[in-house]
Order: sequence, then structure tokens, then C-alpha cells
Amino acid sequence: MIQPRTLKGFRDYPPAMMIPREAIIATAQRIYRSYGFSPIDTPALEHLDILTGKGSDETDKQLFRFVDNGKRPVGMRFDLTIPLARFVAQHIGQLGTPFKRYHIANVWRGEKPQQGRYREFLQCDFDTVGTTSLTADIETILVIHDLLRALGFERFTIRVNNRRVLGGLLERIGLRQQAPVVLRALDKLPKIGADGVAAEMARTANASAEQTREVLQLATLQEKSGQGDNVGVLRQLESLVAGSAEGEAGLAQLTQMLSGCQAVGIAAHRLQLDVSIARGLDYYTGMVVETFLDDLPTIGSICSGGRYDNLASLYTRQQLPGVGASLGLDRLLAAMEALNLLEEVTTTAEVFLAYFAADHLNDYLQLAAQLRSAGLRVELYPDAKKLGKQLQYANRRGFRVALVIGEDEFTAGQCQVKDLGQGTSHTVARQEDAAEIVAEVRRILG
Amino acid sequence: MIQPRTLKGFRDYPPAMMIPREAIIATAQRIYRSYGFSPIDTPALEHLDILTGKGSDETDKQLFRFVDNGKRPVGMRFDLTIPLARFVAQHIGQLGTPFKRYHIANVWRGEKPQQGRYREFLQCDFDTVGTTSLTADIETILVIHDLLRALGFERFTIRVNNRRVLGGLLERIGLRQQAPVVLRALDKLPKIGADGVAAEMARTANASAEQTREVLQLATLQEKSGQGDNVGVLRQLESLVAGSAEGEAGLAQLTQMLSGCQAVGIAAHRLQLDVSIARGLDYYTGMVVETFLDDLPTIGSICSGGRYDNLASLYTRQQLPGVGASLGLDRLLAAMEALNLLEEVTTTAEVFLAYFAADHLNDYLQLAAQLRSAGLRVELYPDAKKLGKQLQYANRRGFRVALVIGEDEFTAGQCQVKDLGQGTSHTVARQEDAAEIVAEVRRILG
Repeated sequence: MIQPRTLKGFRDYPPAMMIPREAIIATAQRIYRSYGFSPIDTPALEHLDILTGKGSDETDKQLFRFVDNGKRPVGMRFDLTIPLARFVAQHIGQLGTPFKRYHIANVWRGEKPQQGRYREFLQCDFDTVGTTSLTADIETILVIHDLLRALGFERFTIRVNNRRVLGGLLERIGLRQQAPVVLRALDKLPKIGADGVAAEMARTANASAEQTREVLQLATLQEKSGQGDNVGVLRQLESLVAGSAEGEAGLAQLTQMLSGCQAVGIAAHRLQLDVSIARGLDYYTGMVVETFLDDLPTIGSICSGGRYDNLASLYTRQQLPGVGASLGLDRLLAAMEALNLLEEVTTTAEVFLAYFAADHLNDYLQLAAQLRSAGLRVELYPDAKKLGKQLQYANRRGFRVALVIGEDEFTAGQCQVKDLGQGTSHTVARQEDAAEIVAEVRRILG
Repeated sequence: MIQPRTLKGFRDYPPAMMIPREAIIATAQRIYRSYGFSPIDTPALEHLDILTGKGSDETDKQLFRFVDNGKRPVGMRFDLTIPLARFVAQHIGQLGTPFKRYHIANVWRGEKPQQGRYREFLQCDFDTVGTTSLTADIETILVIHDLLRALGFERFTIRVNNRRVLGGLLERIGLRQQAPVVLRALDKLPKIGADGVAAEMARTANASAEQTREVLQLATLQEKSGQGDNVGVLRQLESLVAGSAEGEAGLAQLTQMLSGCQAVGIAAHRLQLDVSIARGLDYYTGMVVETFLDDLPTIGSICSGGRYDNLASLYTRQQLPGVGASLGLDRLLAAMEALNLLEEVTTTAEVFLAYFAADHLNDYLQLAAQLRSAGLRVELYPDAKKLGKQLQYANRRGFRVALVIGEDEFTAGQCQVKDLGQGTSHTVARQEDAAEIVAEVRRILG
């Protein structure tokens, strides 16, 4: 006997988790498609050099890698960005640009398992490749907005920034070359405070007190302007980047972006200019975005992304700029669970049909087929067991309606329709076309 | 520069393939759900002993296996049956029975790549676990039937058999113990002919001429009865299994199953009793099913399955009978391609909105949002390039409608609505709520 078990850091998804997960995936597909993003898929396994080409030491360490039976070094993808880069480098000639794709697939990382983090998790990325247009940046925000609304969230904040604004400031104050170390110091602001950042900047970027002051002024603009006051922040940024072409361009993009989002009616409190976010400096070059749930900010950003200049430089000489974001589906699912937004249901059907009169199997099959033709999802219990046991099963699974037809009802041409939520029951006529049953079921489902 | 490429036997799915693939998946989910099957997922990686416990030498050889960073021997799943067995052994206490699950996920096999066969492919399995009821057998047939109809197929044949019928015959003629070798010989009937089978049965099963004659009579009943004559076949089977309890029980099940399918209106020509199919003797113990496309029989069975007595005997002492089938999604997709059932489309949106008047970005964004609110899928071109180039892009992607609003139209409050299929164009009023545009687009989409 082999002990049934999953690997450390991996988990099964039983129906109670998989039903909402499929609902989120379907919603993401629907929203991505409503903007013309098309699905792609790529292999779980790639040549190792494809995956390690750009990887940091940390991702290299986390890679599930091995040598396959053909003696090829291979690895399991650890994100969907590198496969996208490899994919467009290989196929962009046939695909044409702009190329708008979404990709919903598992990735694998041998991280130390933590609360809510697993070695296999689902990513839902969308990107527009082959254009530098701000239209695509704005649409990235709109997709995130529509997606969260479609998932039932009302209270969330999309935080946007533009890397070029900070770049402009650093240019103006003569720290452009030190951007990476300045960013690294700034990222620690919430942890080590302004004094800590100043000390680190002095040490790693050789920054003067005045330079440090200006950088910190930028990074803390947010707090001073008050939440949601994007116009106030923009106004202050103007003086901070004045004279830097890079900074002024970034500011103009931010302004136009906020204007476009306002034009389509994104509520002001849901979109916040936040100059403190930077996201992986090495990769992003323009707009950056993070998304937080107001009722659960501690879970971190649930949808993040930004603009990049050159997606696939490791695999092709063709310059491929783009913009996109990634929905952290499993994190979102955990959040919805924490916020009680998930129903506890382990069935996909709404109607339970009891198998009561053993000799009438064909009649039950027929009725179930009629209800399905009417668009209802119906589970017929397979065995003619005691009715109490069958209804217990139906309740436990979370069915909303149960239909009971015993010998008496067959004789009388009737059907009991039970509202399992209310605990009530009505008897209706079981006509040739089951129309009354369908109507009563629909009435209960509402 | 790293050469962008996929591993031997693996492939990318660009939008033209992924769009129909997602449509098939969505249809499968919808049909499975209409019968109350619920989704599950399990990890791509499993402990190696879980996977090799039951595997044949052949699957063992095809396994992608390695030792992970924690020094654990692991493997990538090569089907969805072993993960299901492990899953139910581990969780059946919480899940309860009957447990109806579907599982749509990739599996990996290091087979020699052939035309249309890859080392990574998608399986769509559904199973009912924890019941021996014939209801579940019948529903397996109904699901396959509904699924193919929902996918747009009219001409297909579901072939059913029951392993117990052959078992009964072998019992009656004294070859019960030799069932595995007899089956192996019989499986070769289409290749080596009756004489070949007879020779092999004499050699491996020590079968007499009379025994061989009876077995071959059973296996070739089909041809003699004429296609679709299930009643005729049943009648002949009666005498072949008479006196064997096992055979009579199998025959009774077949009879009841055909009656159930008839009751819900499955067309007689779509369901065929075929005593020649057996499918992996070691595993299946009752009903077995295969499904063929009448217009493309050579592609093989696109949906196969059957009943088993004991799903998870390697992992638990609990006896878990069940029945299910697996849709070969990638094979089906190849068939649909061969039969010209797929549209050549590389966009998910139906409406293309040209970006023509550079200063009106917010107006375009607003209109796109209005159309989306009305339920339309809209792609806004990101750059204000030449209109001809934009329309070329729209045609190439397969959009059905293009909207053009230039400076003139903005001034006049109008919008050109182009039917890209017909090559016609209408100018409609661009009202506050875009109602006329929506109506004209809907008219074109039909």
C-alpha cells in the first residue's frame, strides 16, 4: 500500500476551491477578451538556457530543473513572462503587432512554502506587445478595473506611477547613474524609515544630504498630499522634475493616463497616483501599477505590472516594447475566502433529482434531460437509496433545489419541488414537457 | 543571443489554435457541469512512487522524472487517472460518495513524437466514483453524446460494450483464466485477421479450435448483424453467454443501458453495441465505450472510458468502484481542423475601433467602454496610424466589424460602421449612449 500524499509545497484543489477558481478564470477570460486580448499557451517545460538566460540567482535556485531522457537540460517555467518573450521572439513575424495576448497557466517555483504560498500556482497575465502607445498603458488600468468589478469587488485601489518621473528627478539632481541602488534603498522606506534610507543612499549612492532630501520628498509626496488627491501630487511633481526631459515626459504620460481613466468613468478613489511604487527597476521602464484591496491591504498587490522597452532582447534583435500586468489568482482566491466572498458549495449543479422509485430509472433520466434542455444543471442521484440519505447528500453538497418523484407522484403525474434553502416544498404537475417543474425551479433560483 | 525554440515534442499554442481550444474546454465544462460533475485539480508533480506504483513498463519509461532540490524522487503526471486515484484515496472521507469530478489538465509523456502526438497534451476526464449503479454508466454515455452535439458534431458513433459479456463467454467455454492473453490476441483482429488470432490463441491460451471459433464468433457479431442493429446483436449474445451468470449480468446491463439511452432520445445510429471493443482489460471491469467521428474514423476514438471495480487499490483499502471517460481534446481539435470546423480567427473581439483622430483618444476610450457595457468585445487600435494599415490589421485578425470616426465624423456626430465580411459601410449617428452604433454592430453580427 502506497501512502497517498502530495509533495511538500503542493496541494490538491477539491471542488470547494476549484469551483470559485474556475469562476475567476472565466471572468478573467471574459474581461481580457472584451479588450481583444487572445489566449496563448506555451509548454510547461523549456530548454534550460531559455529559462536561466535572464533569471536572477534567486529564480535559478528556485527552478525545477532536470536532464530529460534525451539528455537535454530542461526546466519548468517559473513565470509567464519569459515564455512570452521566447514565444514572441519566435513567432512575431506571423503574429504581427500589436500583439495582445493573455496566458492563464501554472508556474512552478521551489520556494520555501509559506502560509498561502505554494510551489505551483496559477498566473493570469495579459500584455500588449509591439507598441509604445499610451493607449495600451491606459487599457492595462481599465482591464484591471473591469476585472475587479466583474469579480464583485467594490473597495479596491489601483496605484499607478511612472518610472520616468523618478528617473527625471534623479537626472535633474545628478543621480541618474545611481538609479538602481537608490531604488533599492527607497524600496526599504516602509521598513527602515527616512533616516535609514538616507544612511543607505549616502553609503551606496554617495548621495549628498540635499540629493537625499529631494528623493525622499518625491517618495513621500503621497502622504503629504492626502489620499486620492492625484491633482495635488501631479502639481508638486512638476517642480520636482522641472527641466528634465525624461521626468517631464513621464509626468505628461501620467497626466494623460489619469485623464483617460477619468473619461471612461473610473471612480477617482479607485485610482491613485503613488510615486512610491517602483516594481523591479531592471525590467519596467514607464508606467507601473499595483492593486490593493481596501479591506485586506496586508495581502499585498493582487494585480501588478507595467511598461517595458524591450521584452525579448535575450532571444531576438527585434525591439519589442510592451505593457501588461499579472493577476495573482491564488492570492485573490485567498483574499476572497478571507473576506467571505465565496459560497461554500461543492456541486456545480443547482437541481438535485432524487432516485426514489427504483423501476423508473428511464423516467428520471428523461426528466433530467428535459431540465438540461431548458438550461438547468441537474444531478440525478445514481442509487435508489433511502430518500433521507439522498436529501442529506443534496444539502451537504449545497444544492438549492431537490426534486422528488416517488411511486405516488408517478401515479398522480406530479413532482415535489423542494427549496432546500428555505426548507419548503411545493407539488407541481409533471407534464409531458416538464414546463411547470422548470418554472417552479426557476422561481426558487430567482 | 539565445535561440528561441521549444523542446522536441512540445509546441506553442498561438491564438488561432488556442481560441478554439478554449471554446472546446468551455463546452466540456458546461456539459460536465450540467450533470453535476465538479472540477478538481491536482499537482503536475507527484511523488515518484505514486506514479510508478501502477504504471506499466511503458509508462515508466515515458515518465518525466527527476530528483528535486529536496532530494525527493518526483515525476510529472502522465495521465489524470492515477492522480484521481491518489486524490480520492486521500480525501474521500471529506468528499463523500458518489463523487462526480471532472479534471481538465495537461499530462506529460516522453513518447516518440509523431504526427499529431505531443509530449504535453490536455486531458478532459470525468468520473463518477463510489457507486456501482448503472445510472452512472448511462450518464457517461449521455455526457459524451451531449458534449459532441454541443461541439457541433452531427455524425458520430458511440460504441459500447460490456466486459462481462466476453468474460461470461470465456467462463462458459472454460477460458476464464486465460482472459488476458485471449484479449491481447483479440485486440489484433483488425491487423492480423481471424486466422492470426486463432494461431495466437492456440499458442498463448492453449485454446482449442472450438474455443477459438466461439470467441471469434463473438468478436465478429457486429459485422454479421449489420451496423446499428443493436437488438440483433443482443439476441445473438444471449445464446453465446447463456448459462454464465457473469455473461448474463453483463448482457442485462447492456440491455438496460441501451434502453436508458433510447429513453432520453439518443438517435439509434449514434449508439452502437460493439462486442469487439475491450479497452485495457486489466483496468475496466464492466461497460466500456469508445467514440468515433463518422467522417474521420481513422483518427481513432476521441472519447473513451469505462467502468472499474476498484480505482485506488494501491493507496487505500477502501473499495472505490466508478465509471468515467476521457475526452482527447487535442485529437478532437486536430479532427475539427481536418473537417474544416474551425474558423480562422486570431482575435477574441468582434469589433475593431480604429484610432484615427489623434487628439480624440479619450473619446475612443469612452466609446469602447460604452460598447463593452453593451456586451460587445472591442479592440481599440493603440496608435493613430494610417487608416489603411489599421483596417489591414483588422481584416488579418478576423474582426467582423470596424468602426471609423475621423475628425469629420467627430464634427458631424457620426460613426462609420464597416461590415468587414461584406465589405460594406454605413454611417450612423454617434449619440451620447452609442445606441445606434450598438444596434448596427449587432445587426452585422447577426
